[in-house]
Amino acid sequence: MDKKICIAIDAMGGENAPYKNIEGISLFCKKYKKKDDYFFNIFGDENKINVELKKYNIPDKYFRIFHTKSTVSDDETPLTAVKTSKNSSMWNCVYSQVKSESDISLSAGNTGVLLVISRMILKTINGVSKPALAGLWPNMNGMNIVLDLGANIECDEKNLIEFSEMGSALHKSLFPNEKPKVALLNVGSEEIKGTETIKKAHSRLKEIGKNGDFIFNGYIEGNKITEGFSNVIVTDGFTGNIALKTAEGTAKFITDNLKISLKENLLSKFSLLFSYFSLKKFKEKLDPRKFNGAIFLGLNGPVVKSHGSTDSIGFHHSIDLCYNIVKGNLMSQIKDNLSHLNDNQI
Amino acid sequence: MDKKICIAIDAMGGENAPYKNIEGISLFCKKYKKKDDYFFNIFGDENKINVELKKYNIPDKYFRIFHTKSTVSDDETPLTAVKTSKNSSMWNCVYSQVKSESDISLSAGNTGVLLVISRMILKTINGVSKPALAGLWPNMNGMNIVLDLGANIECDEKNLIEFSEMGSALHKSLFPNEKPKVALLNVGSEEIKGTETIKKAHSRLKEIGKNGDFIFNGYIEGNKITEGFSNVIVTDGFTGNIALKTAEGTAKFITDNLKISLKENLLSKFSLLFSYFSLKKFKEKLDPRKFNGAIFLGLNGPVVKSHGSTDSIGFHHSIDLCYNIVKGNLMSQIKDNLSHLNDNQI
Repeated sequence: MDKKICIAIDAMGGENAPYKNIEGISLFCKKYKKKDDYFFNIFGDENKINVELKKYNIPDKYFRIFHTKSTVSDDETPLTAVKTSKNSSMWNCVYSQVKSESDISLSAGNTGVLLVISRMILKTINGVSKPALAGLWPNMNGMNIVLDLGANIECDEKNLIEFSEMGSALHKSLFPNEKPKVALLNVGSEEIKGTETIKKAHSRLKEIGKNGDFIFNGYIEGNKITEGFSNVIVTDGFTGNIALKTAEGTAKFITDNLKISLKENLLSKFSLLFSYFSLKKFKEKLDPRKFNGAIFLGLNGPVVKSHGSTDSIGFHHSIDLCYNIVKGNLMSQIKDNLSHLNDNQI
Repeated sequence: MDKKICIAIDAMGGENAPYKNIEGISLFCKKYKKKDDYFFNIFGDENKINVELKKYNIPDKYFRIFHTKSTVSDDETPLTAVKTSKNSSMWNCVYSQVKSESDISLSAGNTGVLLVISRMILKTINGVSKPALAGLWPNMNGMNIVLDLGANIECDEKNLIEFSEMGSALHKSLFPNEKPKVALLNVGSEEIKGTETIKKAHSRLKEIGKNGDFIFNGYIEGNKITEGFSNVIVTDGFTGNIALKTAEGTAKFITDNLKISLKENLLSKFSLLFSYFSLKKFKEKLDPRKFNGAIFLGLNGPVVKSHGSTDSIGFHHSIDLCYNIVKGNLMSQIKDNLSHLNDNQI
């Protein structure tokens, strides 16, 4: 039998933990009930976790609990947490990768603290200047990888080039049948547009794209992200964070307005009877819980951050993401891509 | 009788010009048929313009045509245009403000060229370091002003502070019953978040906000732009351009998916019969043509840029925006706000 995919779960991170975390595990187990290739290392309050695991009848063979007394609070800042978070559920969850007990770590806890301690524990891959936070973003043909989503407020061209290679590796590991197509997020598609940093990155990526790790599509504007012509969207953490949140806010604004319109009179309410299944499918397709999970790339081990406020369905999608990242050999894909980059001497 | 509001129209700019431009004027005249306080200076090919004006029976008292032979092409770059655009319809349109023939200029032509020649002709207001491009962005309670949308790729804290004052002046002139509430677009709401530039701007705006031109709400994240708690959203031109276009792309992505869902089977198509008017109202409320028109702020005269690809309805909304900007005394509001800024010595 092949080695199982070992996912380390911080059961105490996020709103409504550990309840949604364990329910998320149960949803994952139900989905993959015919498979036997995964295992959970669960970190947190053993008593609470056990009660939940029993509630969902999750068989013993799928998990091991590592009791931890302390939890990283949402109010903790990355600075103080370096000292206080040691031996917390989050710390031990990530640390289990160093001990080779786990292949990947998942937490819905404090983002800043998770980034700092992941970096401390797992260390940055040799040759990578800055790790990045990558996310999933739907497009008309499938799924984009967008990075950086906020780990690095300021980036130089070397960072943007490394993000392109790491983002392509992530796309390849999750969607092996598609070719990664990289584009740099910019204010126009012409080569003269943008900052000096982005122009330098553009000129180097035109060369690097020839090594075959990805197709380089040049610049992309914000309104083209969802078109699907490119599927790895690269930007600095400031712009990426604002673009992602603006898209989330716009989606909510439109669907809120749609709800108001469809409930405003008897006739439109009546129409919901006939459009119920279509609207349900529409809602499901664009359900943000399906894209829950930001991936911290560039460390000697993958770490996934789930939205703190998501529910068990969202958390289960993050577990699914972890499973597919390990199955798709993300770490070796990244090392492979970065080795080509070194050949090219950025 | 009060002086009329004189709007200079570049009739030759944008797709399908001058047809949509003149039809836009006719739609505006229909809307304001009971008013007599406006006048158009129309720049472009006299013959073509005359044919269109007659088609819509627009009375002579509302316009004067200024014949120009040349037009700025979409392929022109700002660099070459400085020489070649002189005496084009766009140039003469903006120049009519220097001759005090017009109060405001509107063009749907080449954006880069319009920004460069407007700056050359009208000159930057004394004390303003960089003019900015501002736009309308709907929120749950009304309308935001967002700036800069791309005129300045890199900005320092002085620019961001001036944008706050000018954006507030624009908000006051368009929505006199609301208090401008400024927020700086950032990756988090805590004071420690963001770049050094944005932190410096934040600290100065906390002081400047006390002069009463606006309420300063601190930082805003991308997902809160549409909530309406703040209504003047300030950022650099790189981030603003990407945020705006990302919102446009997301809106299109969602409505495209909604259309597909509502037409996918007979039952859902049938539901459209009952929801037709509600969906129409929903579509109308969020129709991007209603927010058409970016305002170039910080020059000694206001210039509005319409989307090049909009139709006559979109162009008519830009004319309406011009009319309301002049009616709301934008220029004196800006000078008033900036004088407070000088008192504060940024």
